[in-house]
Amino acid sequence: MTSETVMEIGEDALIGRVTDGLWTGDGVVIGPGDDCAVVKASGSDWWNLLKTDAVVEGVHFLQETDSEKVGWKAMARVVSDIGAMGGAPLFALVTLMVPKTCEVAYVEGLYAGLKRCAERFGVSVVGGETTSGPVVMISVALTGRVRPRFCVRRDGAKAGDAIYVTGRLGGSIRGHHLTFEPRAEQGRWLAENFKPHAMMDLSDGLAKDLPRMGRVSGGLGCVLDEERLPVNEGCSVDEALNDGEDYELLLAVSPRRQMRLEEAWRERFPELELTCIGKFFKGTDKMPLEKSSGGWDHFSS
Amino acid sequence: MTSETVMEIGEDALIGRVTDGLWTGDGVVIGPGDDCAVVKASGSDWWNLLKTDAVVEGVHFLQETDSEKVGWKAMARVVSDIGAMGGAPLFALVTLMVPKTCEVAYVEGLYAGLKRCAERFGVSVVGGETTSGPVVMISVALTGRVRPRFCVRRDGAKAGDAIYVTGRLGGSIRGHHLTFEPRAEQGRWLAENFKPHAMMDLSDGLAKDLPRMGRVSGGLGCVLDEERLPVNEGCSVDEALNDGEDYELLLAVSPRRQMRLEEAWRERFPELELTCIGKFFKGTDKMPLEKSSGGWDHFSS
Repeated sequence: MTSETVMEIGEDALIGRVTDGLWTGDGVVIGPGDDCAVVKASGSDWWNLLKTDAVVEGVHFLQETDSEKVGWKAMARVVSDIGAMGGAPLFALVTLMVPKTCEVAYVEGLYAGLKRCAERFGVSVVGGETTSGPVVMISVALTGRVRPRFCVRRDGAKAGDAIYVTGRLGGSIRGHHLTFEPRAEQGRWLAENFKPHAMMDLSDGLAKDLPRMGRVSGGLGCVLDEERLPVNEGCSVDEALNDGEDYELLLAVSPRRQMRLEEAWRERFPELELTCIGKFFKGTDKMPLEKSSGGWDHFSS
Repeated sequence: MTSETVMEIGEDALIGRVTDGLWTGDGVVIGPGDDCAVVKASGSDWWNLLKTDAVVEGVHFLQETDSEKVGWKAMARVVSDIGAMGGAPLFALVTLMVPKTCEVAYVEGLYAGLKRCAERFGVSVVGGETTSGPVVMISVALTGRVRPRFCVRRDGAKAGDAIYVTGRLGGSIRGHHLTFEPRAEQGRWLAENFKPHAMMDLSDGLAKDLPRMGRVSGGLGCVLDEERLPVNEGCSVDEALNDGEDYELLLAVSPRRQMRLEEAWRERFPELELTCIGKFFKGTDKMPLEKSSGGWDHFSS
């Protein structure tokens, strides 16, 4: 037994320790560690995607935040994860914890945001539950589906792959983290048309998520072209690297497909940028971001 | 806009209000309101069951409670719901909120309990997440599967049906609520062999859950034979009716099947009681429990 706290060991170490030795039955394609879990559907040639994610008052939003936006965010985060695997979202369950003294109108606002996002992305909210608790917390569990050949993992990047991101990064704390559009349609389109070697959504900041992708892809390093980094207006490169909650897609693409991808993307999504920001290399010597202390850890002080 | 609080309108009214007007896409068999949501599996003749449930420190367990038991309870609650639909549990996602100062050993205890229950009932834990927050909260999202012909809803009771419960009721607060065995195997056996007209698990107390089953089954009333109520040792009838968190199965069975059911049950589950406690009637005039103020509401003061 140890008296270490979760803050001392950090989120990644905690997850590693508690998921160690998990029993796994039949039908699990991808367990803990990717954007979604992937399981085989009984008697079907589809795979099911499973994802859950929670937003907590005081951690992911403030008490005074418009509850409609909080609801949108709670649903949009999981929709983003389904898209990052190349899948389509389907069914959601909503767990809501609110203090007993919470106003009904506040809760109605939360659900209005949840419903708006769900409808926009074709998600049926099929259940959930409410409980009391000291702060507001919404956890959304979402299922999706994907054809096995279109399922994109985060650990398949190869040395030489070009690294792309959608949209622009940084400064999400100024409001974007509450109103972002999950890249579900884009993720699915990318998977079905260009099957990236690896894909994930950027939730903890590029400085943390990019090395993560390299690490799980057999220990790849990367070079990042900071001058090409698509930075949101008013943001520094440092903020674009470290702010987190961008919810843009990060993907690794074979260099042979770059030109075709860029052309097709411009045609299909003319209003959204897709930028090549660097390259994966063999070996972790080229890992400029690895030394950064940036990115988001839920248990850091 | 209203300034009512959730405590003032109560849990049922709150759920009714926020789930009103939910958009529903294809494939939803049963939406909010039953033990689980039921959805069609893409390209398969199975149905999928979806359930999520949270336990919160200070609401469902105390800070000093052995965390291994808390973990067991969190998983056992959702396993119980899958069983109450006649299904088999499959894949779980675990959302864990803990304070930053929480000891790692406490979290390892939670997971030890979760894993023990998962393994016992054949559940693969395939993912989840951790976040910080002011108290400990575990939410488990669980999928299951059921053949359409064996899926048992809670709203199918018919006038004249015999009402049964498994096990004994009452006094769960003295420890049973942390260590109970979900009746997953029993629920599936009942569904596959005797297809009850309606089934649910008892979480809020018989005084609340039995009228609920009658109400959703087209507004049935019931008579309850209090003398036959299987009461746990040391409990009063009142406690057996109102304590909640029994996690026993409540089911409605055609009177023609009673004798065969009771015989087969004794053979199959000799160590667990199955007791006929009353009967459903047409019309709500016979609803002795409806007037009771008992049962559990998460937002009552």
